[in-house]
Amino acid sequence: MRAVDKYKARVEAANSLLCVGLDSDTQELPARFLAGELPQWSFNRHIINATAQYAVAFKINMAFYESEGADGWRQLERTLAYLRERHPDILQICDAKRGDIGNTSAAYARAIFDALGFDAVTLNPYLGRDALQPFLDYEDRACIILCRTSNPGSAALQNLRFGDRPLWRIVAEMVASEWNENGNCMLVASGRDPAEMAQIRAIVGELTLLVPGIGAQGGDVKATVGAGLNREKGGLIINSSRGIIFADDPANAARALRDTINHFRFA
Amino acid sequence: MRAVDKYKARVEAANSLLCVGLDSDTQELPARFLAGELPQWSFNRHIINATAQYAVAFKINMAFYESEGADGWRQLERTLAYLRERHPDILQICDAKRGDIGNTSAAYARAIFDALGFDAVTLNPYLGRDALQPFLDYEDRACIILCRTSNPGSAALQNLRFGDRPLWRIVAEMVASEWNENGNCMLVASGRDPAEMAQIRAIVGELTLLVPGIGAQGGDVKATVGAGLNREKGGLIINSSRGIIFADDPANAARALRDTINHFRFA
Repeated sequence: MRAVDKYKARVEAANSLLCVGLDSDTQELPARFLAGELPQWSFNRHIINATAQYAVAFKINMAFYESEGADGWRQLERTLAYLRERHPDILQICDAKRGDIGNTSAAYARAIFDALGFDAVTLNPYLGRDALQPFLDYEDRACIILCRTSNPGSAALQNLRFGDRPLWRIVAEMVASEWNENGNCMLVASGRDPAEMAQIRAIVGELTLLVPGIGAQGGDVKATVGAGLNREKGGLIINSSRGIIFADDPANAARALRDTINHFRFA
Repeated sequence: MRAVDKYKARVEAANSLLCVGLDSDTQELPARFLAGELPQWSFNRHIINATAQYAVAFKINMAFYESEGADGWRQLERTLAYLRERHPDILQICDAKRGDIGNTSAAYARAIFDALGFDAVTLNPYLGRDALQPFLDYEDRACIILCRTSNPGSAALQNLRFGDRPLWRIVAEMVASEWNENGNCMLVASGRDPAEMAQIRAIVGELTLLVPGIGAQGGDVKATVGAGLNREKGGLIINSSRGIIFADDPANAARALRDTINHFRFA
């Protein structure tokens, strides 16, 4: 099944737009997971078991595995194998923000889509379309391209104006009108400014938006959902990482956020 | 020693601006290296032994190791350990083009600077300064920020004009005037257009430029060196990857390019 269809099917099945971010930083894990040989993997299994029923997607942040070297890579592989076996219907997103020249991007695409088997990957548009083409060519996977990010300094480049259009708007237009030839693009769109979210939605039509900035990053669920939904009351992947995985009760935190999102989704 | 000083000392010691790019794609390695358990590592050792005396830096492209999974990571670690032991005076550049929000960038910085021990890393500016700050805070390492890349599609974003200034120019100005507070920034500047290279040099003063696009990517050595040198006849790291490592005689290819660069450098 194509990743974009897998996403839609799971939205229906789990009645959820919630993405759980496995930002499983070894430095932040509860002590009881540190005794074993593969603490990130034990922790992830625990989080997956607690939250899967509420999740449309799991997002795995590569930095927290790369920082553990070859061991981190093994724990990442174990986590993905577990997800494939237990929850093949949940989208697996690789948060890597890759982008490089052609033959290098081809190698990253092999790493992420073939070797690791992710359904989707986050990508950086700064190098232009040809740099991302090796990813875009995987028609059955999703390419989630950075448009507007949620960090405080993101305005420095993303808000620069060409005539009356900020850079983030040009990226949204480019992806929607040109880069999405295979119908497998999505965008990263910050939840910090609902007015921008609404503009992005107007530009991209039904395209799905991955929204960071909920929870730990301070985005507002009501405004995000109100501005970001597409006409099918979907088209959003709303991520929370630390707010769920490091909560006292991750299952409860995931269910609560899934339900809050749905409250505004169907309001 | 700070990476920027290590670079300058090595330019003098080896009389070289040449960077050898270890783009050791397993799919491209000569067959004789594929028999062993760690083909990338055997190949890299061979290339390092052949070319080190001509090199100011080795650039390791993460994609080609990540595509081999945990095994790739081990081969990367072996390569770096070998470089540290045999050639501690040669700059080790991690070509990763990372850039993410703060706590994620902090984890990437730990992976690249602490765990792997690289001297320098390539970074993507799209998210803004705060996203790169965890890297910039390592004062003894170098942060090589993408400004103008050499791929055909790079113009789509990088040549967009804000008033009369293209985006790549704004990035160069931002890095030189703001992001380089610790004196540890460099820029990626394509060798495809000497006029642009000259403009970048004029903006950034003595800052060092990493130049891809020589050899396989078609840049012209004479024009690049003429436009890119700083006042000390240095300030360039001129990379060649496939043109050297997959040459029939890598030592000869490295020496020839080093000498060609020097010919125009001292012309």
